[in-house]
Amino acid sequence: MPHTAPPSIDLNADLGEGFGVWPASADGELLSLVTSASIACGFHAGDPVLMRSTVAEAARLGVVIGAHPGYPDLQGFGRRDLAASPREVGAYVIYQVGALAACAAAAGSRVRYVKPHGALYNRAARDLEIARAIAEAVRLVDRSLAFLGLAGSEMIRAAEEAGLEAVPEAFIDRGYLSDGSLVPRGAPNALIEDPAAAANRALQLVRDRRVQAVDGTVVPIAARSLCVHGDGPSAVALLRAVRGRLEAEGVTLAPFAP
Amino acid sequence: MPHTAPPSIDLNADLGEGFGVWPASADGELLSLVTSASIACGFHAGDPVLMRSTVAEAARLGVVIGAHPGYPDLQGFGRRDLAASPREVGAYVIYQVGALAACAAAAGSRVRYVKPHGALYNRAARDLEIARAIAEAVRLVDRSLAFLGLAGSEMIRAAEEAGLEAVPEAFIDRGYLSDGSLVPRGAPNALIEDPAAAANRALQLVRDRRVQAVDGTVVPIAARSLCVHGDGPSAVALLRAVRGRLEAEGVTLAPFAP
Amino acid sequence: MPHTAPPSIDLNADLGEGFGVWPASADGELLSLVTSASIACGFHAGDPVLMRSTVAEAARLGVVIGAHPGYPDLQGFGRRDLAASPREVGAYVIYQVGALAACAAAAGSRVRYVKPHGALYNRAARDLEIARAIAEAVRLVDRSLAFLGLAGSEMIRAAEEAGLEAVPEAFIDRGYLSDGSLVPRGAPNALIEDPAAAANRALQLVRDRRVQAVDGTVVPIAARSLCVHGDGPSAVALLRAVRGRLEAEGVTLAPFAP
Amino acid sequence: MPHTAPPSIDLNADLGEGFGVWPASADGELLSLVTSASIACGFHAGDPVLMRSTVAEAARLGVVIGAHPGYPDLQGFGRRDLAASPREVGAYVIYQVGALAACAAAAGSRVRYVKPHGALYNRAARDLEIARAIAEAVRLVDRSLAFLGLAGSEMIRAAEEAGLEAVPEAFIDRGYLSDGSLVPRGAPNALIEDPAAAANRALQLVRDRRVQAVDGTVVPIAARSLCVHGDGPSAVALLRAVRGRLEAEGVTLAPFAP
Repeated sequence: MPHTAPPSIDLNADLGEGFGVWPASADGELLSLVTSASIACGFHAGDPVLMRSTVAEAARLGVVIGAHPGYPDLQGFGRRDLAASPREVGAYVIYQVGALAACAAAAGSRVRYVKPHGALYNRAARDLEIARAIAEAVRLVDRSLAFLGLAGSEMIRAAEEAGLEAVPEAFIDRGYLSDGSLVPRGAPNALIEDPAAAANRALQLVRDRRVQAVDGTVVPIAARSLCVHGDGPSAVALLRAVRGRLEAEGVTLAPFAP
Repeated sequence: MPHTAPPSIDLNADLGEGFGVWPASADGELLSLVTSASIACGFHAGDPVLMRSTVAEAARLGVVIGAHPGYPDLQGFGRRDLAASPREVGAYVIYQVGALAACAAAAGSRVRYVKPHGALYNRAARDLEIARAIAEAVRLVDRSLAFLGLAGSEMIRAAEEAGLEAVPEAFIDRGYLSDGSLVPRGAPNALIEDPAAAANRALQLVRDRRVQAVDGTVVPIAARSLCVHGDGPSAVALLRAVRGRLEAEGVTLAPFAP
Repeated sequence: MPHTAPPSIDLNADLGEGFGVWPASADGELLSLVTSASIACGFHAGDPVLMRSTVAEAARLGVVIGAHPGYPDLQGFGRRDLAASPREVGAYVIYQVGALAACAAAAGSRVRYVKPHGALYNRAARDLEIARAIAEAVRLVDRSLAFLGLAGSEMIRAAEEAGLEAVPEAFIDRGYLSDGSLVPRGAPNALIEDPAAAANRALQLVRDRRVQAVDGTVVPIAARSLCVHGDGPSAVALLRAVRGRLEAEGVTLAPFAP
Repeated sequence: MPHTAPPSIDLNADLGEGFGVWPASADGELLSLVTSASIACGFHAGDPVLMRSTVAEAARLGVVIGAHPGYPDLQGFGRRDLAASPREVGAYVIYQVGALAACAAAAGSRVRYVKPHGALYNRAARDLEIARAIAEAVRLVDRSLAFLGLAGSEMIRAAEEAGLEAVPEAFIDRGYLSDGSLVPRGAPNALIEDPAAAANRALQLVRDRRVQAVDGTVVPIAARSLCVHGDGPSAVALLRAVRGRLEAEGVTLAPFAP
């Protein structure tokens, strides 16, 4: 083990992903298990009332608040790629980050980071122009915000170029390809649903800074945050197993943001 | 004339009220005529791209930027009352003010005031509970924001109670009833479309601090801002006439916010 | 018992009230328990994909399909009154009925009735002008459609005036006031959640054509359909109890539409 | 000239492309110049009130009514590609065609054809799976509907496969590439704005059944309808010139649908 200091890692999940009468399932339990919450901002999910209550509960529990902007596609939950221009994407990010920032301010708290959602996240991972549009939008709103994105992706590169704090993340409930990208949803092994397997992967990511891809390749990944998708049916069970395992191994769970 | 200092007044108009391909008519000209711009925030009109460009142009021209939040009713342009609860209204205001504040920050500027739009404005003028929900929302986001509302209405009362700077406004293109409320849209004499009549009214409001109601009554109104609706067909002509007349009479046109 | 023929009654519930990733809870079970399904049409809930699958499942089970149009208010689930004009309401009804009718046609079935949703239903129950706008809209689209509405309300009157088949309904899970209107949501005794109480009420409505109001008054109600709200947490349990009780007492459950 | 009968051609334009307070510019004039109107159905533009009035005016003028369904993207006017699945696209088409069909029925008229809009049109022109999803949706709603699409594209192929009447169209205000596809918007020569040039092109299309591409190639195109985009600034002038020229040359302007 290469570190002399006891290792520490952030756990983040997507939260506040309900809308109107439709609840954000399991948010209460998830908030007690993560150290950072990526909160939907009204475009793919989330409405102003839900955003306020989610932010307030996160603040109460000491969970770090992040904005989770997506495409304006409520019907598709932001999971369908949309050929929005860099200028449009930048404006969407500014708008959503600002809306959540006001909800956080109203709760006496603040937004510390931005993480794109769904199809926008996937596009920004491989499309440098879009990643730059997002990073520039974040920088224009508040240069003290961190940019949370897929480790090794164009998001990290664009965030660093923009002078933002770039926080690479890895997924404990998604399969990896040998190039470090995620197995697309719908493909075999896209999702990891076994809590013990997720816990093993989390430990491997924290201790060895690597992950095993679906073809057996070992991929080096230097992640500062581990993500579980809040909408997965087994998100709570996965997070419990991951927390238990990491804590048993002496890993401190703590937000990347102070 | 009761003032020794030369009188000064703010001129505000609703701006940025397009959406997507549909333009905000006459915005360019209006921005060069007003001292404060109440900018739509995406719920009844305005989209993130338009909000960014409107805010940038206002900042370039030195026009003070205000948030103009409305009901989530794009189809009805926010002009139809919606039985949203005070909690919902408060969240809608926080969300929209935050979204515009981020657009302003991205343009190197800031939002200075909040003015509710359309049916929400009319409801808040007479419904203290809703007025308080809006004032509280504004205070929670940023207590340095002013609250621009109808002179003599519950909005002004709620803003003062909340410790906000309350800025009463009067309308130069709307008919008044003897109780100081506006003639409802659609009723006779609801709109003033003659530039000279509007200019006279403006001067009367600034110099005499009163307005003549449709029944002939003279209503005292202490306004710090005069409003022209940006979407009226003759808004540009009205504003030109008003500016010309006021300046000719020695009135300084200046934003209420420093 | 005043009838010589064995009594028969329709059971309807609101279905298809999910949106995008957010499911319409318990729809599968509810469809196997009702004889008529009032299906959301995209304005307060329901999206085209869900509408198609709900209609197809209803057709497969022999459940009669009704359109359940509401206000364009996804965020408020159509439960907040909106000051839309009669002309706007009429157009909203035509649009939504047509959208569902096409989904039904694509499933080899058809829409047989229209029942307004939520705040639009409540407004139409007491506002004859709005009730007429809805009835006229239904008549213009297809005069063979029935209009399902609150027994004794302006909806029934407007439907009859328009020459539509007017089908009065009663609620087995809502409290009644002595004038035959519903106890408003949120007020004490607004909801009946005990399956046995609901079953008793259903039997009383079918056999005695009356209901006991919350103040003890007995209100005569000639209903041809009984409604359970599909979104209630105990809707499935209520419907099971109601069906069991009615069938045990010799009541035939059958759609009002042939 | 290969025809012994006097040549006849349909002229279609996109209409009803406003929303709420934002008007569909020039619709009144355009309706008096075309023989078929492709009317927006609420997803990329169009609201129920506007749809009703547009359909009624088309019916009054004897203009054939077509449904013009698009992606659910009001902010982008349906011009941005969206990675909706064939199943989603099919449901969107069914929903929108049904909504417009009910508006037409309410005006005593009917929808005769379907033409996809914007990015959905462009995708369906080259993606056979999507073209088939649309054709199948049209067939399921009403197999007597025609499918209007780009001449030579996958839309025409899919329509023919589905047993629908396939109506190929050509554009008189768009540049062509040598493979018969359109020059993308934003590229040089994408738009033809000169009325005389448009009139020449129209005549060439009707008489010679071919068009000259931007590289000089002559492309054979057997079009039964000529399209002018209703939202172009010069649509009215173009249409006037085209009508004048065609009529002077003895071409009859008549809808393709009886």
